[in-house]
Amino acid sequence: MISQLIEKIKKTNAPICVGLDPMLSYVPGHVVKKSFDAYGETLEGAADAIWQFNKEIIDHTCDLIPAVKLQIAMYEQFGIEGLIAYKKTVEYCHEKGLTVIGDAKRGDIGSTSAAYATGHLGAVQVGSNAYRGFDVDMLTVNPYLGTDGVKPFVDVCNTDDKGLFVLVKTSNPSSGEFQDRLIDGRPLYEWVAQKVMEWGAASMDGAYSNVGAVVGATYPEMSRILRKLMPATYFLVPGYGAQGGTADDLKHCFNEDGLGAIVNSSRGIIAAYKQDKYKQFGPEHFGEASRQAVLDMVADINSVL
Amino acid sequence: MISQLIEKIKKTNAPICVGLDPMLSYVPGHVVKKSFDAYGETLEGAADAIWQFNKEIIDHTCDLIPAVKLQIAMYEQFGIEGLIAYKKTVEYCHEKGLTVIGDAKRGDIGSTSAAYATGHLGAVQVGSNAYRGFDVDMLTVNPYLGTDGVKPFVDVCNTDDKGLFVLVKTSNPSSGEFQDRLIDGRPLYEWVAQKVMEWGAASMDGAYSNVGAVVGATYPEMSRILRKLMPATYFLVPGYGAQGGTADDLKHCFNEDGLGAIVNSSRGIIAAYKQDKYKQFGPEHFGEASRQAVLDMVADINSVL
Repeated sequence: MISQLIEKIKKTNAPICVGLDPMLSYVPGHVVKKSFDAYGETLEGAADAIWQFNKEIIDHTCDLIPAVKLQIAMYEQFGIEGLIAYKKTVEYCHEKGLTVIGDAKRGDIGSTSAAYATGHLGAVQVGSNAYRGFDVDMLTVNPYLGTDGVKPFVDVCNTDDKGLFVLVKTSNPSSGEFQDRLIDGRPLYEWVAQKVMEWGAASMDGAYSNVGAVVGATYPEMSRILRKLMPATYFLVPGYGAQGGTADDLKHCFNEDGLGAIVNSSRGIIAAYKQDKYKQFGPEHFGEASRQAVLDMVADINSVL
Repeated sequence: MISQLIEKIKKTNAPICVGLDPMLSYVPGHVVKKSFDAYGETLEGAADAIWQFNKEIIDHTCDLIPAVKLQIAMYEQFGIEGLIAYKKTVEYCHEKGLTVIGDAKRGDIGSTSAAYATGHLGAVQVGSNAYRGFDVDMLTVNPYLGTDGVKPFVDVCNTDDKGLFVLVKTSNPSSGEFQDRLIDGRPLYEWVAQKVMEWGAASMDGAYSNVGAVVGATYPEMSRILRKLMPATYFLVPGYGAQGGTADDLKHCFNEDGLGAIVNSSRGIIAAYKQDKYKQFGPEHFGEASRQAVLDMVADINSVL
């Protein structure tokens, strides 16, 4: 899987993914109105608005980018109807040739992680048929439960050619509360990084492993250390843009070959039309504003590589 | 919320919850056949089989127990259809007066945790209407991202009278890989426990906080220490039965007053009919086997309190 993603990154010259993490407040009024007119002020109405919003952004950006990241929480907030919009968005992104990263941060004891891995990456057996539930290409995973909580995800990656990004150092302000605490002189995130390498050692797909790491753009010194520590691990880098990470902050996430990281931006792209910088597009042309924001982000990141 | 749960625990004299964590392989052949006859060997068919299975177990145990725990992964493995069965089960348990613990182990950066909290515990605003997505009473939460990843869940607990169980020391074999590592002389799980108390300090509901902790039955020495460290924190205790924890192992999870912990059993109850001990019931009477397994579990636990 990671080799396919790398091919697309090279082809687009864009080491980024667009975070389709919609809040209803991001969706322009005319889109919301159309969905509410059709379905009422209901969960179906909200889910339709989000789906129409996503579709427009995908249509305006899919030729420029290798991948999207879908934060499943933004869909779960609308219950079943939201998850139907999630699935529809995954399928549409696949039609457009995009790699889909499910940002679900799942993780549990072994048998439970196996069920998550089946539902999000693999196929479930029902009698003589097999079905793919959400069928994303790569999934984010939480490491707190240790090896037996992660291994079932790795197993599905190996059988179904899928990929993972395991949380190592997250982008949020309080990530250091536990992740930075020193254990035998090294921060916890380095111990997690060590395990991520072990977990991914048998999942090499070209120069990189299908088992990657989440490393926030907001802690550049730590990403520099992690980049050296885990040279064959691909990084999913959140925190660029709205969360405060700059291109300069994230250059350390890349290897010498210009590979090794894919940088996510969510709000900064999908709600671009709300920024002063892109307000000339207007809410009616929010998809074009997102396209311009992608072009600007790619140029910004490539300027430091 | 925790005071309501405690009332039910006192009334039933059963400090346990039944883990409705169904695998299709647990569902007796005649139930599966009926669902497949109606819906085919499809995800709908699998979800119906699980729902019928759950319903039978709830009907046979709801008068004996205060609560159920639903492991959402077991539903997510069947995609949207599985999650519809999850929601249906939550609603049915509420009709029967049971407290519902959603075992989802969610956790992310602040804005994302807020969306999870909305979808699982709270209500989402759609125009002038508010809707409850999955609407469980209590939710399990992962602490790896620190305070800003947990606070949105606590906020919803405070506004909507809901509860949490934050992962502190999990029951799985490799839980110690990170959780037991020493930081300034104390294991990580104790630092997490300290934070759980801080997070829950403003959420007291009687003698206990609405912010509880997950403490596995499989590490009795650690639960003894945690019990003393966090006297006003309710414990959700997985690992009893199929995972190897005995009644003797988990007595330390309780306070002197006989409260302070609710012990979960999943396989041991819902697949009881498959055990030698209960095989006289036969697959046709799997609900009665589960009922007997609940009675035996309650007696077993009460014998050490």
